[in-house]
Amino acid sequence: MCGVFGIVGHPEAANITYLGLHALQHRGQEASGIVSSDGDKLYAHRAMGLVQACFSPKDLSTLPGDQAIGHVRYSTAGGSHIKNAQPFAVDYSHGSVALAHNGNLTNYENVRERLEARGSIFQSSSDTEVIVHLIAMSTQDAVEDRVIDALSQLEGAFSVLFLTPTGFIAARDPHGFRPLCLGKLVHKDGNAIVVASEPTAFELIGAEYTRDLAPGELLIVGGGEMRSIFPFEKKPAKACIFEYVYFARPDSQLGGASVYEVRKALGRRLAEEQPVPSGSGETIVIPVPDSGVPAAVGFASAAGLPFEMGLIRSHYVGRTFIEPQQTIRHFGVRLKLNPNRAVIEGKRVIVIDDSIVRGTTSRKIVKMIRDAGAKEVHVRISSPPTRWPCYYGIDTPTRAELIAANNSVDQIRDYLAADSLGYLSLPGLAQSVSASRTLANLPVLKDPVASHCHACFSGDYPVALSRQKSPSRPPRHVSS
Amino acid sequence: MCGVFGIVGHPEAANITYLGLHALQHRGQEASGIVSSDGDKLYAHRAMGLVQACFSPKDLSTLPGDQAIGHVRYSTAGGSHIKNAQPFAVDYSHGSVALAHNGNLTNYENVRERLEARGSIFQSSSDTEVIVHLIAMSTQDAVEDRVIDALSQLEGAFSVLFLTPTGFIAARDPHGFRPLCLGKLVHKDGNAIVVASEPTAFELIGAEYTRDLAPGELLIVGGGEMRSIFPFEKKPAKACIFEYVYFARPDSQLGGASVYEVRKALGRRLAEEQPVPSGSGETIVIPVPDSGVPAAVGFASAAGLPFEMGLIRSHYVGRTFIEPQQTIRHFGVRLKLNPNRAVIEGKRVIVIDDSIVRGTTSRKIVKMIRDAGAKEVHVRISSPPTRWPCYYGIDTPTRAELIAANNSVDQIRDYLAADSLGYLSLPGLAQSVSASRTLANLPVLKDPVASHCHACFSGDYPVALSRQKSPSRPPRHVSS
Amino acid sequence: MCGVFGIVGHPEAANITYLGLHALQHRGQEASGIVSSDGDKLYAHRAMGLVQACFSPKDLSTLPGDQAIGHVRYSTAGGSHIKNAQPFAVDYSHGSVALAHNGNLTNYENVRERLEARGSIFQSSSDTEVIVHLIAMSTQDAVEDRVIDALSQLEGAFSVLFLTPTGFIAARDPHGFRPLCLGKLVHKDGNAIVVASEPTAFELIGAEYTRDLAPGELLIVGGGEMRSIFPFEKKPAKACIFEYVYFARPDSQLGGASVYEVRKALGRRLAEEQPVPSGSGETIVIPVPDSGVPAAVGFASAAGLPFEMGLIRSHYVGRTFIEPQQTIRHFGVRLKLNPNRAVIEGKRVIVIDDSIVRGTTSRKIVKMIRDAGAKEVHVRISSPPTRWPCYYGIDTPTRAELIAANNSVDQIRDYLAADSLGYLSLPGLAQSVSASRTLANLPVLKDPVASHCHACFSGDYPVALSRQKSPSRPPRHVSS
Amino acid sequence: MCGVFGIVGHPEAANITYLGLHALQHRGQEASGIVSSDGDKLYAHRAMGLVQACFSPKDLSTLPGDQAIGHVRYSTAGGSHIKNAQPFAVDYSHGSVALAHNGNLTNYENVRERLEARGSIFQSSSDTEVIVHLIAMSTQDAVEDRVIDALSQLEGAFSVLFLTPTGFIAARDPHGFRPLCLGKLVHKDGNAIVVASEPTAFELIGAEYTRDLAPGELLIVGGGEMRSIFPFEKKPAKACIFEYVYFARPDSQLGGASVYEVRKALGRRLAEEQPVPSGSGETIVIPVPDSGVPAAVGFASAAGLPFEMGLIRSHYVGRTFIEPQQTIRHFGVRLKLNPNRAVIEGKRVIVIDDSIVRGTTSRKIVKMIRDAGAKEVHVRISSPPTRWPCYYGIDTPTRAELIAANNSVDQIRDYLAADSLGYLSLPGLAQSVSASRTLANLPVLKDPVASHCHACFSGDYPVALSRQKSPSRPPRHVSS
Repeated sequence: MCGVFGIVGHPEAANITYLGLHALQHRGQEASGIVSSDGDKLYAHRAMGLVQACFSPKDLSTLPGDQAIGHVRYSTAGGSHIKNAQPFAVDYSHGSVALAHNGNLTNYENVRERLEARGSIFQSSSDTEVIVHLIAMSTQDAVEDRVIDALSQLEGAFSVLFLTPTGFIAARDPHGFRPLCLGKLVHKDGNAIVVASEPTAFELIGAEYTRDLAPGELLIVGGGEMRSIFPFEKKPAKACIFEYVYFARPDSQLGGASVYEVRKALGRRLAEEQPVPSGSGETIVIPVPDSGVPAAVGFASAAGLPFEMGLIRSHYVGRTFIEPQQTIRHFGVRLKLNPNRAVIEGKRVIVIDDSIVRGTTSRKIVKMIRDAGAKEVHVRISSPPTRWPCYYGIDTPTRAELIAANNSVDQIRDYLAADSLGYLSLPGLAQSVSASRTLANLPVLKDPVASHCHACFSGDYPVALSRQKSPSRPPRHVSS
Repeated sequence: MCGVFGIVGHPEAANITYLGLHALQHRGQEASGIVSSDGDKLYAHRAMGLVQACFSPKDLSTLPGDQAIGHVRYSTAGGSHIKNAQPFAVDYSHGSVALAHNGNLTNYENVRERLEARGSIFQSSSDTEVIVHLIAMSTQDAVEDRVIDALSQLEGAFSVLFLTPTGFIAARDPHGFRPLCLGKLVHKDGNAIVVASEPTAFELIGAEYTRDLAPGELLIVGGGEMRSIFPFEKKPAKACIFEYVYFARPDSQLGGASVYEVRKALGRRLAEEQPVPSGSGETIVIPVPDSGVPAAVGFASAAGLPFEMGLIRSHYVGRTFIEPQQTIRHFGVRLKLNPNRAVIEGKRVIVIDDSIVRGTTSRKIVKMIRDAGAKEVHVRISSPPTRWPCYYGIDTPTRAELIAANNSVDQIRDYLAADSLGYLSLPGLAQSVSASRTLANLPVLKDPVASHCHACFSGDYPVALSRQKSPSRPPRHVSS
Repeated sequence: MCGVFGIVGHPEAANITYLGLHALQHRGQEASGIVSSDGDKLYAHRAMGLVQACFSPKDLSTLPGDQAIGHVRYSTAGGSHIKNAQPFAVDYSHGSVALAHNGNLTNYENVRERLEARGSIFQSSSDTEVIVHLIAMSTQDAVEDRVIDALSQLEGAFSVLFLTPTGFIAARDPHGFRPLCLGKLVHKDGNAIVVASEPTAFELIGAEYTRDLAPGELLIVGGGEMRSIFPFEKKPAKACIFEYVYFARPDSQLGGASVYEVRKALGRRLAEEQPVPSGSGETIVIPVPDSGVPAAVGFASAAGLPFEMGLIRSHYVGRTFIEPQQTIRHFGVRLKLNPNRAVIEGKRVIVIDDSIVRGTTSRKIVKMIRDAGAKEVHVRISSPPTRWPCYYGIDTPTRAELIAANNSVDQIRDYLAADSLGYLSLPGLAQSVSASRTLANLPVLKDPVASHCHACFSGDYPVALSRQKSPSRPPRHVSS
Repeated sequence: MCGVFGIVGHPEAANITYLGLHALQHRGQEASGIVSSDGDKLYAHRAMGLVQACFSPKDLSTLPGDQAIGHVRYSTAGGSHIKNAQPFAVDYSHGSVALAHNGNLTNYENVRERLEARGSIFQSSSDTEVIVHLIAMSTQDAVEDRVIDALSQLEGAFSVLFLTPTGFIAARDPHGFRPLCLGKLVHKDGNAIVVASEPTAFELIGAEYTRDLAPGELLIVGGGEMRSIFPFEKKPAKACIFEYVYFARPDSQLGGASVYEVRKALGRRLAEEQPVPSGSGETIVIPVPDSGVPAAVGFASAAGLPFEMGLIRSHYVGRTFIEPQQTIRHFGVRLKLNPNRAVIEGKRVIVIDDSIVRGTTSRKIVKMIRDAGAKEVHVRISSPPTRWPCYYGIDTPTRAELIAANNSVDQIRDYLAADSLGYLSLPGLAQSVSASRTLANLPVLKDPVASHCHACFSGDYPVALSRQKSPSRPPRHVSS
């Protein structure tokens, strides 16, 4: 997963982008970058780490101009390297172009093989690099047409921002897998246009949210005007439903609906679908903080049970925490979460989490709660079992590693050593999203399930993956 | 404020101390250090920054032995320098000694002046340095007696750990201002004794909490045995009540009482003492996260109002965040907290915080909530007005900067631009602590107010400050 | 200027390359990199700074395999960026290829424009990037043929090493501007082939110098054998004569001739061509250390005058030395060189340097010597006046900045405030090189002047520069 | 070994000190520090590493005032730690005092034991710390008298600078073991007094050398005047003769004599005392650069043999160079020195070095020269065999490690595998120093041998070492 931010028409474009990226930090902590334009040239700075570590005041001062785009990149297993940091910025026949991409291209391997056959060279292992090649090779003349030409050849998920010395383009793929929204920032010298993965980036900088970009929309800004076109073949909208469950910030809106309200609704629905078995003794509802908090608030209120902070999260565990070796091992989640014995001891505990991936963390949490004196531990998950990998931009493990891909709910419950385990149903999830839209006076979704991509739960992939390399290809990929 | 941790009798003493300090990280983020002993020599490592940044695996490997003490230091205004990092470790006539100190000595200046007159030199600006001088100058023979001799000359707050190549001593001042507790860690080669500022450090390492050290207690560990003595003149117990309100971790116990339960009780009592004025429209209770969460849970349940996460805290704001200059300024709390418009908009909002110091942050929070669409903003504080500086180890601003020292509650409310403002009373605070002790089957406090130090609220200082330098002294203090 | 090193057939290929690059450090201090191959994939590491700072043991351990190439890059004015660090490594249709280049392509702009018109994108501002594009676009099948195809389209200077997962190619341009030599390293598991910019890299690793690659030669190593071909149109040999004067290490051989012996011969010839005017008083010969030492030794012996170290060089001035501002300014050369008053005072001083570029440093040196009490200061330069910029890989200033391009020798002498100034003649320089070849039993050069590139002295460029951009091209170049 | 620098009366005192320390960098590369005074307080900055790495412009800006002292510290085996970095700066009863010390106190252990018995604590393992304790404990009133009181209790070598907020004192021990000299820096606002270990520090900053401080002299600067007193019992002058041989910079003067001229004289005398055995074939004289160069120049001229640079020194080997492990090992001196085959091959080589310590480096150099084709290798050393450790401030290995302490010259020659080995005699060394003084019009030394400390050659220690700890003392020394 990644986050993108762009701005046109602000004298401090790079500074604003820096703040916008900070507000999108939850979408990627591995690397971050900004490319700005002063109308004549592009200026780039990229580095590994959190936004605040990537940019010193001096770095920001090397990024002049009144338009900029930025990117935060998620930490993935193997490809953690500055070469893969975005925005990408290259020179080609028509000048310079930079781009920042959130998503994943399902026909990347095919396109890359085709490009290489034409003589293209590749310097990164990121699928984003094919986009600039396609732009460079386009026979169209205008940048806008070259971008359309390039994106038309791509399949999968892309919410992408382009910057040239004189213009800015934002595009969202025809299914609208990943979010992208538009806003306006009024400043003393005029109005700036801002685009971001989530509207929470607008709040920080004092901008107003206007609307989400529609699936398939291309927004062209330049020469003082903004145009919107729909150059791609229309496809059914398939916004990622997992953004609501976990990925987006709770204070964001997706498609206009409050993520926090959706999560509370998931908790309420979960309380209905998966009530806690009756039993004697005091029963409390606790979240796995911070992501499980809204669903736990919803669950507790629907179930008429007290909400308590039964697990305390440490704010001081960074990526650099190194566990000492030898006898004291495998602290893992304990360094981050500590049971609050005073509220847990002697209680029946309902613990609310958003999802279970491999199950190892959940198992440790159950043990931790039980060791702190809980009489019973009931696990409730505010989404369906995660059974399939995502092809559209979320970094999930393989099927072999997904516990729900290979085990029944009962088997998972036994692995977790929980007294009971309950998942939310897919209709329950989709209807909760739909209901929260109503709350925001948004149009009713006729078929809430079909309106979203839920492949990670259902295996129902809107776009097939065609990443297989042709068998005759020579070994390649520089490792660095 | 600072945190201390010590362990005797574990083959990985330094590693365990590292983890213990991590669990005490909330008590000090400026610097951290460990001194270990292998029975023959002391080994020290100190550095600036978070525990995880201060110790590499290689650093830990330079700290052998089965006993160790550690320290985390709070970031203070001026004296941020490696020279002031603890544990202090020095050589003197009887060998080497290291110490880690949480607290503040009220007669530091007098003692220092006396020591300097005798010919002592000072290399730091930390009050802790006088302790080692007094030990070195003692005419007693045994280390234990020298420590008693030294501590007997000191006034104020000290929870302090001493380590020599062959022994370990923990001491708490006669008033017991700062917490210090004892635990046991069973490991495959035997039992280790552990001492820490808060029992939460025990949870992480799998140790059991035994009891708090009593005010005035000196615990001597060495030669395979542990003894407890009370060598100081007995004084009334005066545990810091602000530890319950803000400083300690919610999953800790202080004096045996759960900090989380105390904070919930504060919220409930606050709801009684300072109910929200009646008015029309939906009313919600929101915490200033994370410290305000337990009190908000208690307030909401007592008031029968919904608890909501109306402010979302970013986990990515570190100490290095640098705001870009010029037009976009003064982000401050906005980088850390974002209003959750979906739950706030159109509501009467009761926002719960633990205390108000200067008022500037609270003012920004009120504005942020109102800008997000709240109809009314009612501020409720789960402690009395903070009117006096702390002389016993908490880094508070001067009276001139404390808004409550110079303004009435009405004036503060006006400054915050809140619709109403209510503080908890001191009796309400003390009785809530007392009630939570009952919950944990602890002895009843006859006079809860008198049993604690509440000088920051009342100005009633158990020990007077005698820090004034004599006017005839030459200018000094090396700045570095 | 840059340095390259390659090795095939050694189990510690990357480690050896690291040492080889260290020995070539004088050819480039800005950045350094190594790409290794284990027969299956390429592995790359590049960083800014000296070789020893670029590679930790851990970095080296990420570079497996028995073949490797490496590069040290010279600090140039503007383009100091990790993106320009070499070896370049990319993926293309036939797999992966890496290359390390010393030299400069005179038709770079033309080729780049042609490539961009075909749709190529450029990620660096280095001329080396066009080489990989040409390889990728070649219609040839074998890597060897693609490399020949690519290099055939290029003009200017290239001593270049290529590495693929299964093979290694070294090539020197038809004029042989920049040096490149071949050696053999016998180790316990067999013989390795080594290639380096200078044979001094062989000495350190215990390899034997075999011969220089001939101008236009392509050396192909793979499958256990080595072949040499000459695929380019034959051109007159034009080895850079300035390598003898300044650039190469004195303990190197170029074209088989000892650089140290050449420099001594330059000094002897200079003593004949530019003797010191007679005068009264003791006369001494001093070098500008370290590069002027051999010529000064030669001059002193030919002139029958004492050689003295009249200037002492500090070994502690790195690139990071920051001069404090205000009154004490412009230390420049003084931080690096200090006059040795005891030997200078009261003497007639002949100071020997290899060249004068802008004249500012020489002027300071003359002043420094005079201030130390010299009666007279006579400057002797062991090469002709530097009047023209180099197009073949040496980073020289523009003509406007070259003092000899715009001033007569008398004018320069006046600027330096020297008592006399004498340069070596071009025939004198070339004949000295030639004479030193005889010393090494190398074939006699029929026309020593014509056998070398001496464009920086004569303006006689063997290959014209065609770097001009077409005026219709859009602005480009990402700055980062 | 260390270097000290001080200045009084310059508006940029810290900046000038920074430059002065840079010029003294050869005396210590481990750590460096500056303490300045603005008349009211002391300001300190110390760090590990070279001067240029220790001080950023920002660091220098934190050091205000018109007087300052600085220190460079030599890298010693074990005690490399910031705690030992100087200047030391402490507070005591009469204010603040800082000091920078070059030398070694022979009665350190005794004094420390006495101080500890009085109750002093020690925070470093540096002998310098006792000086500040003695100042603090003095019963005298004026700082000057306290310093005299303190220094009078010390034995051994000290060239030491003291700084208080209002005054500056420089002192040299009664034997004058280590150098210390005085100069004057004229600047636009007046004249500043400068003091430094070597006058070479004056050259860089444009100051004039006035004279050496006499043994036993105390220079007191303050209130606009400078006084010189001789408060200690008079002792025979014993300047370290090894400073001439190796330690001082060649462009320095010691006791008024040029170090470079002394070294040339050593080479000439060596040629007389230890001529090269006759033999057939060309014979050349080469130095081990850089320290052996002047002696080689002298030897070559006296012997009528050509001087050549037969070994080339790399300027890029820093302290951080890490050798890759496994087959390629033990590069050691090869990374720093490379044989210049062209001048060595087939010759009889006389290699001149200043001293032999352990013999391992010399052995490698001999092998390197022989491997480069030398017919014979004759080693000549411009000082007597180094047989005894230094107690006065030079970091030498123990006797067990000194090859000349345990082997005859013949045995050493065999170990080096040299064809012959010759050392200069002690009278030869001392008379050469004496002769060079004549050159500078300095008073004749009646007994040149007796006028110097030559304990490292003769074992004739002017001051006995009394460092033995009393056996009853407890174990101590904190390791950090």
